[in-house]
Amino acid sequence: MSIDTRKIGILGGGQLGRMLIQAGQLMNLDIVVLEGDTQSPAKQVSNRQGGHVLGSFNDPAAIKELAGRVDILTVEIEHVNVDVLEEVERDMGGRVQVSPSPSTIRTIQDKYTQKEHLMHHRIPVARSVPLEEQSADALLSAVSNHLSGFPVMLKARKQAYDGKGNYLVKSAQEAQTAVSTLAQTAGKGGLYVEELAPFTAEIAVMVVRSVGGQVVAYPAVETVHEDSVCSVVYAPLLASDASVQSRARDVATNAISTFVGAGVFGVEMFLLADGQILLNEIAPRPHNSGHYTIEACATSQYDNHLRAILDLPLGDTQMVVPYAAMVNLLGRDDGTEEGVMKLARKALTLPGAHVHLYGKAGCRKGRKMGHVTVVGESAASVHDHVDTLTALLPSKSSSSGVVSSALAHISTLLPPSIKQVETDKTTTRTNPSHPLVSVVMGSDSDLKVMSGAGAMLGELGVEYELTVVSAHRTPQRMAQFAHSARARGVRCIVAGAGGAAHLPGMIAAMTPLPVIGVPVKGSSLDGVDSLHSIVQMPRGIPVATVAINGGVNAGLLAVRIVAAGMPRLLDALDTYKHRLEEEVYAKVDKMEKVGWEEYRGL
Amino acid sequence: MSIDTRKIGILGGGQLGRMLIQAGQLMNLDIVVLEGDTQSPAKQVSNRQGGHVLGSFNDPAAIKELAGRVDILTVEIEHVNVDVLEEVERDMGGRVQVSPSPSTIRTIQDKYTQKEHLMHHRIPVARSVPLEEQSADALLSAVSNHLSGFPVMLKARKQAYDGKGNYLVKSAQEAQTAVSTLAQTAGKGGLYVEELAPFTAEIAVMVVRSVGGQVVAYPAVETVHEDSVCSVVYAPLLASDASVQSRARDVATNAISTFVGAGVFGVEMFLLADGQILLNEIAPRPHNSGHYTIEACATSQYDNHLRAILDLPLGDTQMVVPYAAMVNLLGRDDGTEEGVMKLARKALTLPGAHVHLYGKAGCRKGRKMGHVTVVGESAASVHDHVDTLTALLPSKSSSSGVVSSALAHISTLLPPSIKQVETDKTTTRTNPSHPLVSVVMGSDSDLKVMSGAGAMLGELGVEYELTVVSAHRTPQRMAQFAHSARARGVRCIVAGAGGAAHLPGMIAAMTPLPVIGVPVKGSSLDGVDSLHSIVQMPRGIPVATVAINGGVNAGLLAVRIVAAGMPRLLDALDTYKHRLEEEVYAKVDKMEKVGWEEYRGL
Repeated sequence: MSIDTRKIGILGGGQLGRMLIQAGQLMNLDIVVLEGDTQSPAKQVSNRQGGHVLGSFNDPAAIKELAGRVDILTVEIEHVNVDVLEEVERDMGGRVQVSPSPSTIRTIQDKYTQKEHLMHHRIPVARSVPLEEQSADALLSAVSNHLSGFPVMLKARKQAYDGKGNYLVKSAQEAQTAVSTLAQTAGKGGLYVEELAPFTAEIAVMVVRSVGGQVVAYPAVETVHEDSVCSVVYAPLLASDASVQSRARDVATNAISTFVGAGVFGVEMFLLADGQILLNEIAPRPHNSGHYTIEACATSQYDNHLRAILDLPLGDTQMVVPYAAMVNLLGRDDGTEEGVMKLARKALTLPGAHVHLYGKAGCRKGRKMGHVTVVGESAASVHDHVDTLTALLPSKSSSSGVVSSALAHISTLLPPSIKQVETDKTTTRTNPSHPLVSVVMGSDSDLKVMSGAGAMLGELGVEYELTVVSAHRTPQRMAQFAHSARARGVRCIVAGAGGAAHLPGMIAAMTPLPVIGVPVKGSSLDGVDSLHSIVQMPRGIPVATVAINGGVNAGLLAVRIVAAGMPRLLDALDTYKHRLEEEVYAKVDKMEKVGWEEYRGL
Repeated sequence: MSIDTRKIGILGGGQLGRMLIQAGQLMNLDIVVLEGDTQSPAKQVSNRQGGHVLGSFNDPAAIKELAGRVDILTVEIEHVNVDVLEEVERDMGGRVQVSPSPSTIRTIQDKYTQKEHLMHHRIPVARSVPLEEQSADALLSAVSNHLSGFPVMLKARKQAYDGKGNYLVKSAQEAQTAVSTLAQTAGKGGLYVEELAPFTAEIAVMVVRSVGGQVVAYPAVETVHEDSVCSVVYAPLLASDASVQSRARDVATNAISTFVGAGVFGVEMFLLADGQILLNEIAPRPHNSGHYTIEACATSQYDNHLRAILDLPLGDTQMVVPYAAMVNLLGRDDGTEEGVMKLARKALTLPGAHVHLYGKAGCRKGRKMGHVTVVGESAASVHDHVDTLTALLPSKSSSSGVVSSALAHISTLLPPSIKQVETDKTTTRTNPSHPLVSVVMGSDSDLKVMSGAGAMLGELGVEYELTVVSAHRTPQRMAQFAHSARARGVRCIVAGAGGAAHLPGMIAAMTPLPVIGVPVKGSSLDGVDSLHSIVQMPRGIPVATVAINGGVNAGLLAVRIVAAGMPRLLDALDTYKHRLEEEVYAKVDKMEKVGWEEYRGL
């Protein structure tokens, strides 16, 4: 019994093929692979008796043999023999469907042709020029005639992946070396030169295209590269500019809508300092930056690739957990398994971490041996786990440096100075760049009241940040803070203010997050002015108001709000409630013991 | 590269073995199975060249052959040949570890011995008596001497599962038929008779026991049976008595702590009308009621079974999604695949639904062909999807009736009358037995204000309930409501009251959920009395107070609160905010067009 009885053949049998088969087995699909190894990662997990084909995904005879056995051909790598795929599509009388379309694979295979295609369809990309010949002169003239000068990226048009085939040319002096180096890998595919995108973050979006042309996108994620190989992925992307998430999905969706054929596409992009998004490159297949979808999304990229090529209903792409990250397990310098195994074993001890090993035999440097996906209730907890894992990487390796700097870079996306201000260090358990709750106040004179909120959040183990944001004196800072909060992963804002007390209401007007208002008692009117300013909001913009000077209760309310679906916090609240009860009972006991008259004098 | 290089052998190669292997492949574990079929569900997903053993899990030679190939033996079914397992454990010089321990399997295999063991350890079970011989007289005398009369359950001590080997004896007249019927299946294992537990719900808890005796439990779930076969599982169990969840876990944990050996154990229990929990039976292996853990928990039961028997760190058992359900895909009367496939194909169209097909060839009645797990942001949405699937079952089958009555039964767990009261039908999108938000008010005179909250929740697509709960006139109802809200899946409570307005604060004192208070304006004091009564809460018990008569804003605030991690709702809030903006802009336009003087007169 199977969801679909048509047979699927995959060109390539590495980890992507393995995960495609694992997804397919849940629907009991019949999938065979073409690979030059009987014990490749994909073949290990499938017992199709004699169904697999032994050979290269570039060998015409082997591809045709596979085509003869199946109804649908698909790929786990784009560097396949497209001529033969086109021949299969043309000559096998429509009996064998090839997904994605060979013409799409052909366009994408040649990275400059891909760029031309995207530019033609007005998708934003970095300016690129093909070299007329593989010479330093051709490079220099291309740069001076078409680009704005060095540094530039010299790239091989074909057979390039994981940074292979790229050369960063810092100055004209390096032109000769760059061309000679790449000429070897580029072969007859040729070279092109590209303006260096001064990106502040790398973004990826997995896009699914159905046979009928329906296009759906997964959330945009942040990818971190180490020596040009994807190293860590954070999902979803958190940026202070909330529009980045939807704009990145739009760029990716628009780009994939210009191609024909069905399947999953990995779209890699650059986020520039000015907020602009440029498409970097496309992979016509499941992608490393989409591994996280297995545990974090309603439907994995592998499941959706199979649904797409079988013309089954596409699955929901939304995340089902609040936050996730993926850490690649890459072979290290020493070539032994120990470095990788250390991370995998550590992952077994981390709540929410899922180990994926690919069953590869040799562990040479940079080889993708597996990955770990971490899911969690907050960005902070997931980042903590990622840090625990990457801390095990050899310190002299360039890698951990890259990872840390990427993490540091994320915090640069925050509104200035939010991350620096922090009080009450002793109770703060926080990665301040990814708080669940943000505590702000109109003036540092409110700190005496608002510190109660911070202390309570710290005591109950909720990551928070605390700073000053004034509605009247720093209106721009307030707007930036309010607009970016949701995208930064904040789930609840606590705002305290006195007197005219506009801060909570103004923030509530600029975010969909719940805002708790704390009326701070001023020198006159006993705080009733603040209370009425905060609580009497007009229809449409609610503020959750607590008692005058109720900083502690505001912290507790914030915990109640973020605790939904976080049993740990609900338990912490129960414990707190019991402690309150016990405090009262202790007083009762004492009063009964000593009598109320003496109690009063104590 | 593997997390652990020791080889594991499984006795049995059905769907449980298949899912064990799938979990093991993520750690690249080497697992082989003993099964009488070369294409059993488990063998299909593993390409261990020649590693599997062909034979019965009861055949001594086959078991010994498997033991000779592996380091650890485990089981996916308890009806294995324990004598041989004990022999392996004893004779193979400690080289082969058997998990769970053969002595534990032996105790559990004989259901009366299992009961004796549990009674000895003071685990609550239904009263049971073994029959001295397989005769009606023996049954009648056991009932009259030891039990409180008919009806009773007559059970075979051995080889019983999925209801096989159970006979409900309604009266003394049925004694002869019951004994004769069961005598055939019971063989020399014998019979025992058990007092009928008048349960209101069936509960299951998966428990993991490590080699060292560490015991951890998954959340308690509700199981629904159809003709004695598990049909639907809801996770977590929602009961109006919040203590059921923790008490069920305690019973299960205490029970498993009394056994030796490592692995996962499925513990099935009865919840009685008086709140008592009785242990029904234990399976010493992964269990149907734990399938949901694959998608819904931080670590699946299969992953944890492997970790347990390998003495690796046990994984976190918490749910990572708010709510989940599992629907078994059972073969139907007609023996064709169509009935099952209809559900599986439908599941592809439901967000959060995951199809699992087991690769079984024949589809006879009652056979477990696969299952569907649905995960979702609320109990209501998950129940909707389960209803959509079970609606496809043949209507004349007894099955759907059983399922529906079980759902109806869940709603009987609610505080009386909560579920009946509902207003504003037109905008309500709700399964009132599983609301995300509960709107209550002290008196029906508050309805004019509080209907604004209901209307807003309905408009933005949040499941809610609405009723009257008076702090002063129905204090017990209020306490029952407040104490049960969290366990019923409610995430936020909106409470409105006027005058002395105690309702929001009193509810907040009896639940860890966020409570929004709406001060309702009375006939005097302009509502300031209500406002101060609600907002000026003491330290420790916060109420999120909105403006006087702010019913609409209370509804909006509730949406903001439950929207965390629900992008659908955050988007709905954004849309609402834009509409508010547009309303104001329309007025601005009009005023500019006609001039303020004329505008004023309009």
